[in-house]
Amino acid sequence: MGLFTKDIKTMNDLFVHQLQDIYYAEKQLVKALPKMADKASDPMLKHGFLTHLDETRGHVKRLEQVFQMHGAQIKAVDCPAIDGIIEEADEVTGEVADKSVLDAALINAGQAAEHYEITRYGSLIAWAKQLGRNDCAAVLQKTLDEEKATDKKLTALAESKINLRAAS
Amino acid sequence: MGLFTKDIKTMNDLFVHQLQDIYYAEKQLVKALPKMADKASDPMLKHGFLTHLDETRGHVKRLEQVFQMHGAQIKAVDCPAIDGIIEEADEVTGEVADKSVLDAALINAGQAAEHYEITRYGSLIAWAKQLGRNDCAAVLQKTLDEEKATDKKLTALAESKINLRAAS
Repeated sequence: MGLFTKDIKTMNDLFVHQLQDIYYAEKQLVKALPKMADKASDPMLKHGFLTHLDETRGHVKRLEQVFQMHGAQIKAVDCPAIDGIIEEADEVTGEVADKSVLDAALINAGQAAEHYEITRYGSLIAWAKQLGRNDCAAVLQKTLDEEKATDKKLTALAESKINLRAAS
Repeated sequence: MGLFTKDIKTMNDLFVHQLQDIYYAEKQLVKALPKMADKASDPMLKHGFLTHLDETRGHVKRLEQVFQMHGAQIKAVDCPAIDGIIEEADEVTGEVADKSVLDAALINAGQAAEHYEITRYGSLIAWAKQLGRNDCAAVLQKTLDEEKATDKKLTALAESKINLRAAS
């Protein structure tokens, strides 16, 4: 994107820009999730991060599919939001001494990333439909469903076990 | 927070740290929302941002109340996540030439901030309950309800009008 130009002229430009943004974000999460799994002590949490790593690799592939379906170049643009979310996760989890409290902090960090993705995929799906690309919307919806399911699983794990242990 | 120390030792430390993080985030949003309202063309969207600005000022006050109820110092810590979300909002909206497309981009930016807050308040409420602070949880819940309501209003506005106009 040019610094002094207005490169987004149409809804289609905005849609493609947002695809490029979330493509970058998913690729950053492929790098971040193994580190989060390493830091986790609870076996279910560790397993949850690794399962979501597999899903996230699939999300990268689905985005490449959508780029191709839409005739757009497969390209990532910097996404300061996900960089900030991951930086904050690193900072906070680096400060935690206790393993159980660290697990609670890791869930919180993971959910911030999930919610970022949920909002971006929500917009992408709405925009795809508006642009008459129900085919692209259907592919993106599969990923959104997985992001929402992961967020719910993390909440259930926190509330059933992790927070209780962290507070004891 | 010390760079080489593990300053978060307990669930209570994590709770207070997260309060300080979202306190910073809410204060940054008090600065960002008037700029978003200025950029918006649709009168309902402009009004929505200004209404949420008033609510956000109330969220800052509620957080100060929770700090006091919990006997913790009122303090903000840097929150790279909200900084990244706001930076990305500035970058993307600065790239958009068309007013209707800009409105769609502004809604998307606003929803990223809302979702960040929704996930953070969700954790804070769960942690407050775990720490036996149902009183703090009840105050935080009021803010969470407002954040969720704003997110829903933005979705409704996007789907009923803004996206349609942006794609035409």
